[in-house]
Amino acid sequence: MDMSARVLIWTETAGTPVDADSAEVYPDGMEAVLAQALTQRGFDVETACLADSEHGLSEARLAATDVLIWWGHRQHEAVSDDVVRRVQRRVLDGMGFIALHSSHLAKAFLTLLGTGGTLRHRLAGKESAPMSERGETERLWLVAPGHPIAEGVSDQIELPQEEMYGEPFDIPEPDELVFISWFEGGEVFRSGCCWRRGRGRIFYFRPGHETFATYWSGEIQHILANAVRWAAPPHQTGNLLRTERVPYPPSPLKR
Amino acid sequence: MDMSARVLIWTETAGTPVDADSAEVYPDGMEAVLAQALTQRGFDVETACLADSEHGLSEARLAATDVLIWWGHRQHEAVSDDVVRRVQRRVLDGMGFIALHSSHLAKAFLTLLGTGGTLRHRLAGKESAPMSERGETERLWLVAPGHPIAEGVSDQIELPQEEMYGEPFDIPEPDELVFISWFEGGEVFRSGCCWRRGRGRIFYFRPGHETFATYWSGEIQHILANAVRWAAPPHQTGNLLRTERVPYPPSPLKR
Amino acid sequence: MDMSARVLIWTETAGTPVDADSAEVYPDGMEAVLAQALTQRGFDVETACLADSEHGLSEARLAATDVLIWWGHRQHEAVSDDVVRRVQRRVLDGMGFIALHSSHLAKAFLTLLGTGGTLRHRLAGKESAPMSERGETERLWLVAPGHPIAEGVSDQIELPQEEMYGEPFDIPEPDELVFISWFEGGEVFRSGCCWRRGRGRIFYFRPGHETFATYWSGEIQHILANAVRWAAPPHQTGNLLRTERVPYPPSPLKR
Amino acid sequence: MDMSARVLIWTETAGTPVDADSAEVYPDGMEAVLAQALTQRGFDVETACLADSEHGLSEARLAATDVLIWWGHRQHEAVSDDVVRRVQRRVLDGMGFIALHSSHLAKAFLTLLGTGGTLRHRLAGKESAPMSERGETERLWLVAPGHPIAEGVSDQIELPQEEMYGEPFDIPEPDELVFISWFEGGEVFRSGCCWRRGRGRIFYFRPGHETFATYWSGEIQHILANAVRWAAPPHQTGNLLRTERVPYPPSPLKR
Repeated sequence: MDMSARVLIWTETAGTPVDADSAEVYPDGMEAVLAQALTQRGFDVETACLADSEHGLSEARLAATDVLIWWGHRQHEAVSDDVVRRVQRRVLDGMGFIALHSSHLAKAFLTLLGTGGTLRHRLAGKESAPMSERGETERLWLVAPGHPIAEGVSDQIELPQEEMYGEPFDIPEPDELVFISWFEGGEVFRSGCCWRRGRGRIFYFRPGHETFATYWSGEIQHILANAVRWAAPPHQTGNLLRTERVPYPPSPLKR
Repeated sequence: MDMSARVLIWTETAGTPVDADSAEVYPDGMEAVLAQALTQRGFDVETACLADSEHGLSEARLAATDVLIWWGHRQHEAVSDDVVRRVQRRVLDGMGFIALHSSHLAKAFLTLLGTGGTLRHRLAGKESAPMSERGETERLWLVAPGHPIAEGVSDQIELPQEEMYGEPFDIPEPDELVFISWFEGGEVFRSGCCWRRGRGRIFYFRPGHETFATYWSGEIQHILANAVRWAAPPHQTGNLLRTERVPYPPSPLKR
Repeated sequence: MDMSARVLIWTETAGTPVDADSAEVYPDGMEAVLAQALTQRGFDVETACLADSEHGLSEARLAATDVLIWWGHRQHEAVSDDVVRRVQRRVLDGMGFIALHSSHLAKAFLTLLGTGGTLRHRLAGKESAPMSERGETERLWLVAPGHPIAEGVSDQIELPQEEMYGEPFDIPEPDELVFISWFEGGEVFRSGCCWRRGRGRIFYFRPGHETFATYWSGEIQHILANAVRWAAPPHQTGNLLRTERVPYPPSPLKR
Repeated sequence: MDMSARVLIWTETAGTPVDADSAEVYPDGMEAVLAQALTQRGFDVETACLADSEHGLSEARLAATDVLIWWGHRQHEAVSDDVVRRVQRRVLDGMGFIALHSSHLAKAFLTLLGTGGTLRHRLAGKESAPMSERGETERLWLVAPGHPIAEGVSDQIELPQEEMYGEPFDIPEPDELVFISWFEGGEVFRSGCCWRRGRGRIFYFRPGHETFATYWSGEIQHILANAVRWAAPPHQTGNLLRTERVPYPPSPLKR
């Protein structure tokens, strides 16, 4: 659990907002806010994006990554299957993987889980804009107070403006369920979900629509930092914890 | 999965409302409504209560019970520890156990789970009665659509008037989480939870405050019937499924 | 849980032994023995194989299948990715999936789980044939006596001659672990594993090397029949269990 | 994850062997070997025993304990129910609990799990002493290579002489299964099991019969040290990780 875990933040675009609507909130891209938040908390952070060679996810780069954070939305299909397999293998080998918000449909996430990742999205009514785009209040309720990702986190976090997601969410039963969201419009959602795959750990965290200021929140940043610590492979602890494999001592009874 | 599973419904009182406030909704006691609903669905139903000898839970009676449904509230401490141990042993031996609503603090439930069963209860404000007593809208969201307890159940069930319960709920992570509730007042709750203990199956189902008409709902009754089928031990299927333990045949390779 | 669940048994070859070594034990192919065993136990059984059009797994055929049993070994890579996706979608929609023995590396199995499926295989020593091919004693220990797949099954089943598999087995933690194997040569293996994915249920069952008489065993056949019943989707129960969605009754308190 | 976690080792006796047969292997008691091993690995270790006032488990002492290690065998019933409840409450509040070997029947362990904890113990044959007392080879197989308790641990650890335990083991399905044992005599056992209860973590570790030198093994000691780190509550990390609860920033969109 070294605080200098090497984090790679992957987004579809780099250095620019996801779209025009997102420009006011994340003028330099969401990854800029996330990277700053995690750097301030002591992690070694880099970014990668779709347009990079091999999407910025070469074998060498993944080998040098402890935790990969993924935020995708509109271009899931543009991610190469080869890269997806490479990410999967690296997770099975121990790399942490954190899927954010609309990454519930990211190929790498679904490949690791085996399900469809679909969820309920409330349709717009007669209003000019759907509530889900205008945003509504989300409350994150902590259901696993003893979980490392919940360390120092309030029982309840209120996000004044978020996009809603609703159950049923097509995921394997989480190994540990940390947060459940309540939405003003009437839905619930399993918003913080942990799974283990091979030697790797996976965390899905729901909040983070591109037009709302969620990732500027200190509490949300704190949760993400906890998630990085939780997901980082133990080799970060270095050799001190390794055993020297002392040969099993002869039983005194067998003298 | 015999529809004639033998069900025993346990309540603190029998044949009378839990209290004066409950009299209008359940004039003959909640168990009367539950018993009628399950009898109509083909089960063999009996009732027992605190005042009965051994609380109506003798060794012989438990041995003849496939699924025990428990609704307790004000008199958890009055249940004898010996009876609690007897119920626990019978569950470990295969009897199903369904804990309803305020039975989240029932001794038998907590003994089987090992946790405290505490939850969040919203405090009353300045109004003459707390919202939690006046009642508010609860929506049960189905999160495990393929689960037997969800068979034939809508994705969403709205109860116009219920008492709220909120997370964190001090339970072991459910083996299967079937329902999550949304409350008008802003909370969420794991409302349908499955666990296995020994050969037995346990289901906790949240709705069912004594002053609201929840157990008169056809959908709620349907869920409870599903839960009984799910929790009933497989010996109900009779001998047809049993193997005759045919001796392992000699391998043709060893002739 | 209709005993007439529609079972489709998939193997790489059809009507012929997997290879010459297998011919003495399964002269008409392993699927012949499996099909007979399940037909005798009341199921509606068909078979399909790699050489069939669409590998015998068209949309229509999968739609008419309740439980797909898969035995693959040498030709995992020959299975089309399109068919694999189709099987996955059908499982998420409710079809049961039973993966046997060397199908731990079948594409459809791995796609549903998200892991690598690798395991330990003991290397041959200096002897003319490896013990793993000559076969050794396997004991299946029941660890979940209350599980439906264990109904009527002994605590311990001894297979005099099987191929060994050893841990670590690269699978997600099973939702329910039913059997653990002990091998004469010194290994253990999680041999009966259950997972849920979407609305579907998955069972992995280890025994069944093509040169040993495992599938002729009455106890093994009984376990497979239990597994089919457990994995079959509940729609088999027909409309009788479906609710009529009675409108929630008006609360008497609100008169 | 502070290496100076405060560990309390509880045994039935203190400073003396469990019995005469144990005297050669653990002349100063098993707790002496365990305490030395954990002290050498940087933990702050104390011991307590049945004869101490309140069994050495006062409220104050438990409040100052991060991880309680329990080894009991012959005097489970002599432990006061009040102390058992106190230990349970402290675990729910965050203290780690490690149950060793014959503590599978310790009251505190069973109270936290809700099951009976029974297992298979092989009966002696015609020989003068049962194999289970003479001891036999146990192999611990690692099934969760990515688990923190497995950090730096071999895939396989051989203990030349141990007492056998066999399945079925009456425990709730572990949240994480880390080790499975193979026994020379033909049984298997879930030997390293993790559960969460409330804010606390529980680990059951099978090896450690009082007449065999198991706890002298460097690898076993290493596993126990890993288990202490895993089970220790996160408050050990101090205030550095705590958030300052920065107020959620106003959304730029709402200016």
